[in-house]
Amino acid sequence: MALETDKHVKVVVFDSAVEGFFLTHYNFLAPLEDSTSLPPGPTGLQALPDMLVRLSRAPVVSIVSIRGRATGVGSELALASDMRFASSEKAILSQWEVGAALVPGGGPMARLPRLIGRGRALEVLLGADDVRGELAERYGYVNRSLPDPELDGFVDALAMRIASFDKQAIADTKRLVDVASLPSDAEISLEWDAFIASLSRPASQHRIKVLMERGFHRPGDVENRLGYYVGQLGN
Amino acid sequence: MALETDKHVKVVVFDSAVEGFFLTHYNFLAPLEDSTSLPPGPTGLQALPDMLVRLSRAPVVSIVSIRGRATGVGSELALASDMRFASSEKAILSQWEVGAALVPGGGPMARLPRLIGRGRALEVLLGADDVRGELAERYGYVNRSLPDPELDGFVDALAMRIASFDKQAIADTKRLVDVASLPSDAEISLEWDAFIASLSRPASQHRIKVLMERGFHRPGDVENRLGYYVGQLGN
Amino acid sequence: MALETDKHVKVVVFDSAVEGFFLTHYNFLAPLEDSTSLPPGPTGLQALPDMLVRLSRAPVVSIVSIRGRATGVGSELALASDMRFASSEKAILSQWEVGAALVPGGGPMARLPRLIGRGRALEVLLGADDVRGELAERYGYVNRSLPDPELDGFVDALAMRIASFDKQAIADTKRLVDVASLPSDAEISLEWDAFIASLSRPASQHRIKVLMERGFHRPGDVENRLGYYVGQLGN
Repeated sequence: MALETDKHVKVVVFDSAVEGFFLTHYNFLAPLEDSTSLPPGPTGLQALPDMLVRLSRAPVVSIVSIRGRATGVGSELALASDMRFASSEKAILSQWEVGAALVPGGGPMARLPRLIGRGRALEVLLGADDVRGELAERYGYVNRSLPDPELDGFVDALAMRIASFDKQAIADTKRLVDVASLPSDAEISLEWDAFIASLSRPASQHRIKVLMERGFHRPGDVENRLGYYVGQLGN
Repeated sequence: MALETDKHVKVVVFDSAVEGFFLTHYNFLAPLEDSTSLPPGPTGLQALPDMLVRLSRAPVVSIVSIRGRATGVGSELALASDMRFASSEKAILSQWEVGAALVPGGGPMARLPRLIGRGRALEVLLGADDVRGELAERYGYVNRSLPDPELDGFVDALAMRIASFDKQAIADTKRLVDVASLPSDAEISLEWDAFIASLSRPASQHRIKVLMERGFHRPGDVENRLGYYVGQLGN
Repeated sequence: MALETDKHVKVVVFDSAVEGFFLTHYNFLAPLEDSTSLPPGPTGLQALPDMLVRLSRAPVVSIVSIRGRATGVGSELALASDMRFASSEKAILSQWEVGAALVPGGGPMARLPRLIGRGRALEVLLGADDVRGELAERYGYVNRSLPDPELDGFVDALAMRIASFDKQAIADTKRLVDVASLPSDAEISLEWDAFIASLSRPASQHRIKVLMERGFHRPGDVENRLGYYVGQLGN
């Protein structure tokens, strides 16, 4: 990953290229082998968790600006990044997976309790519901939520401010925060294994099939209100 | 504990059967032997901490709905549960024990700092004062406090929502959160030992005696405003 | 340190003796040898981190009342103390060091993520900006911020309340919170080493020189708005 070795880049900002979406979930239309056949990354983890743990440890500062839906992998990328800012009106975060009989796979069981405490983490993960910007801030899921017209200006100013500082001081300080705050790769690995195992169980296959029939994986109401729809699948 | 092995139960809700009370403190009228002579539970811990750590690890989701006083053991049960919701107007949480020269015994020194941070945990534990719903939410002591008329509807909807999900996905996800967030049984054990030791010291015996004379352990103002009364015992 | 062995003192309050200042930063006018030639303290750490970790573990309760600037060492003393309260109008906390190409040295990389979560800790440490009372409370950097006229009364009442309790119950309860919440001395030691190393690098020497030329280390606008000024140094 270039961010790990670039001599000059100090800050990277991830934001929403598509109106209404930050980044959403795993591609459930692809064969399972597309995931499991990827070679492991340098950490020994599979490609997605490998990318996420390397992002957390990179000497570059990662800032996520969320306008639209950050569900599943979108939320996991946000949690693996260094800081998260959200549009009060337009951000929706969620770990919706349990609602489809899946176990999330990209680290949220390791990262959310350390960030927002066990009780709120269990509510987010087991409630599997949409979390809007204001609640995300109250829970600490994001650093702050800002009125939508102020989000870009705030994030740009913070990114430029940090980019004006000394790269070594940034990297050394972040590395010491990592010692105090990052989960081990072994914890992250357990989650990926649990996710892959859950993908092939009848309960998740049934729920994903019903969601697909109702419009999942296509632009529209099921994607826009995924929290509502996973709550309508019955038991 | 049936919750650990039941094949069907997914969610259990603890709420207040008696107006004004969720669950309060240890029974100080019973002989000390009633506590110390109980055989240890399956974890090797004494009966109360054994029950609490098993609740935290059970594959069932525990949700606490607090309307009224959750003091001492009541707060400890809430903290050992997975999620906590409180009535903004009618909930009072407290770890009042230090105010009576006691050390709390059911896990709050292990659980509160992990949930709300060291500084606020020390304020709750050493201040030994009543914490109302709104402050409990600000501190993260509960997930949220809600206007009293909305509490039951909110908790019921969340419980039914989670109960509509797949039991294995719930249990696997919770187990991974546990890895990241639960204290070891050894930490819990230290607290119980410190509580039992504190019970027989002259300072606590004196303070509990004075509280009893003023109305402790009977319905009335001392129980209703225990935070105030432990602050009136002098030094 | 007398606080570690005094038989009677139960609570110590640190507040602001000088209008506008709580406690600010390291003395950059003194030769580096003044710091590095000090003998290590009883913990084996250098004098400043030694004092801070012993304060955290002392059987006495430390409460910090912040009115004015608590930057650098001031913030580090606040974070090493047991509880922090701030004036909503007049408190400013900051770890400004990265803005001067320095790595903070008194424990904030170990203490802030445990207190406020990784994301907000990285924002405070890498943003290096002034944090006012209200935001400090929202982030959990302080227990609470209070309207300035109420701050002293609140802190005095809490200190006197705790001082009316039993010293052994206080000390035993705090010690168990410490087990759950304090970083190891080894983590603290890494930070001091990183700070000392950063002090002698050209990047920090240049930035501190420019800050000095603009008025740093003297009463005035650079000290009052240090967050602003470190953002004006360019890259």
